[in-house]
Amino acid sequence: MNRAELIQQWLPHGPQPIASETHFAPSNIALCKYWGKRDSELNLPVNASLSVSLDTLGTRTAVEPIDADADEVWLNGERQAPQSRFAQRVSGFIDLFRVHHPQTRLRVRTENNIPTAAGLASSASGFAALARALNQAFALELSATDLSILARLGSGSACRSLFDGFVEWQMGVRDDGLDSHGVPIEARWPGLSIGLVKVDEREKSVDSRAGMRRTKETAHLYQSWPLQASTDLIRLREAISARDFGLLGSVAEQNALSMHATMIASWPPLLYWQPDSVAAMQKVWQLRNDGLALYFTMDAGPNLKLLFEQDSRDAVLEHFPTLEIVQPFGV
Amino acid sequence: MNRAELIQQWLPHGPQPIASETHFAPSNIALCKYWGKRDSELNLPVNASLSVSLDTLGTRTAVEPIDADADEVWLNGERQAPQSRFAQRVSGFIDLFRVHHPQTRLRVRTENNIPTAAGLASSASGFAALARALNQAFALELSATDLSILARLGSGSACRSLFDGFVEWQMGVRDDGLDSHGVPIEARWPGLSIGLVKVDEREKSVDSRAGMRRTKETAHLYQSWPLQASTDLIRLREAISARDFGLLGSVAEQNALSMHATMIASWPPLLYWQPDSVAAMQKVWQLRNDGLALYFTMDAGPNLKLLFEQDSRDAVLEHFPTLEIVQPFGV
Repeated sequence: MNRAELIQQWLPHGPQPIASETHFAPSNIALCKYWGKRDSELNLPVNASLSVSLDTLGTRTAVEPIDADADEVWLNGERQAPQSRFAQRVSGFIDLFRVHHPQTRLRVRTENNIPTAAGLASSASGFAALARALNQAFALELSATDLSILARLGSGSACRSLFDGFVEWQMGVRDDGLDSHGVPIEARWPGLSIGLVKVDEREKSVDSRAGMRRTKETAHLYQSWPLQASTDLIRLREAISARDFGLLGSVAEQNALSMHATMIASWPPLLYWQPDSVAAMQKVWQLRNDGLALYFTMDAGPNLKLLFEQDSRDAVLEHFPTLEIVQPFGV
Repeated sequence: MNRAELIQQWLPHGPQPIASETHFAPSNIALCKYWGKRDSELNLPVNASLSVSLDTLGTRTAVEPIDADADEVWLNGERQAPQSRFAQRVSGFIDLFRVHHPQTRLRVRTENNIPTAAGLASSASGFAALARALNQAFALELSATDLSILARLGSGSACRSLFDGFVEWQMGVRDDGLDSHGVPIEARWPGLSIGLVKVDEREKSVDSRAGMRRTKETAHLYQSWPLQASTDLIRLREAISARDFGLLGSVAEQNALSMHATMIASWPPLLYWQPDSVAAMQKVWQLRNDGLALYFTMDAGPNLKLLFEQDSRDAVLEHFPTLEIVQPFGV
């Protein structure tokens, strides 16, 4: 289905846009990954996924109408060239919201407090925060679910960043994608900790969208990925409901490694790992062999995200002294 | 099917054993990998595979009857403890040949001119050379195909080391495995070069047999491996027949990476790579981007085997100065 037609029919008419307040949305880290699209126009996924939102790490965004020929996009205080990929994606997303006010041009001010494009999903929090700001500017009064659907059109995983805590992205079955959005999971898990191991903060040479496409088109092994993901999702729900950390960690780690395995099996090979990524994995496995309840997940990048509980914090910090730790549910 | 029964019925009766000459068999490197057994008693594979034998790199073995209670096994001039894994495997293999002379005990002298257990398949050349020596000692006069079937019972990939040059291991369909053996491919490829990049020569902590089992039992992605392998085999035959090096290299590299991908997707994760393995892969990819026709394959270990042609030799040596190069078909 064509996204312009969908929006034209679906989005309510509203008044002339006004300036929004600053809206925040958290980054999220998937424990069961989104990897592969069944519809690249609407960002509909091949598999359901499950994430945890990163509390106060994310993106703050405000928008205001301007009298100009083009949108004006500011990222972390720097004006972005209108032809830059970043500005183009932002303007393309605004197009969805201004469908009934096509002459409107906006100034967008957005600030990330996480490293951009280093595998920490700033595009997810970015489109989620932008959706919230645009919702206010255009006085659309959309629900979180509707904003999740819209955010998904900007970047698939953004649909999970409309909610705090654990979030499942229901893949849905409809062609128009109106049943494909984030759904919060009620359970909380105080003390659950995510430690960011920064191997390399440079921009990736192959972005997630291109990586997914290559994997789906060239890796035979990808054919088994949906089976892996659907099994992992069920086991993660069990782990969250039973607060079984060993299950949560092992499923998340195998899921992430299976996703990377599909990339490694692509042609040309897609390996986001650096030598130091392997060294960090080996360290985690050694510590786990020694009895520490420590697991990791990785996104389409070289960095590791360690998973552990509060009572392992001191031991983990001893071995990863520069770790940046997030506790999505507090201590 | 039980291997003892099979051998009892199948192996000819011969006279009392005598001392053999020294027999050589080459190591082999698979371009389409053997990964996964459909029958672990008989080492019957899930998929057909294709290798190239390493000319003069391999194993030399001689056997002679001794008056003793147990076999005596010498490896590279060192007596192996009878309870060692190595001596046990050798004695277990001799059991197949002495089925009609069960009282016979042998002294086995075997020499590898390749690093043992560093991913260079010394078990393949080892069982192939031992099969040849035992064939002479027991005066069995078996064909190369029959010896390939027997060598397979010692170590799957050994069935390919009974032949020089390109060899296909036909997986076969019979329960008794009598149609599962190496078949030489007539084509030769002068100038084809294999460069051994030694990342780590230590023994692996998880051997291939255990690695295959874990992968088959725990990695969902393994379900797509037979499809990958059967496609790769067809394309490798094409590449060899057309002497298309780009096709040969790309299929071999994707096949090896897909095999490693199935390991990476296992639980617990099975990663044979070291940080330096990743660094070497990145170097190959960079050189290929720069226009050099250079590919690699890897077995269940951290080392890379570079694939290139004679006319790239100088350029490859410039970037990998310590490379050990084998040319299976000469210059």
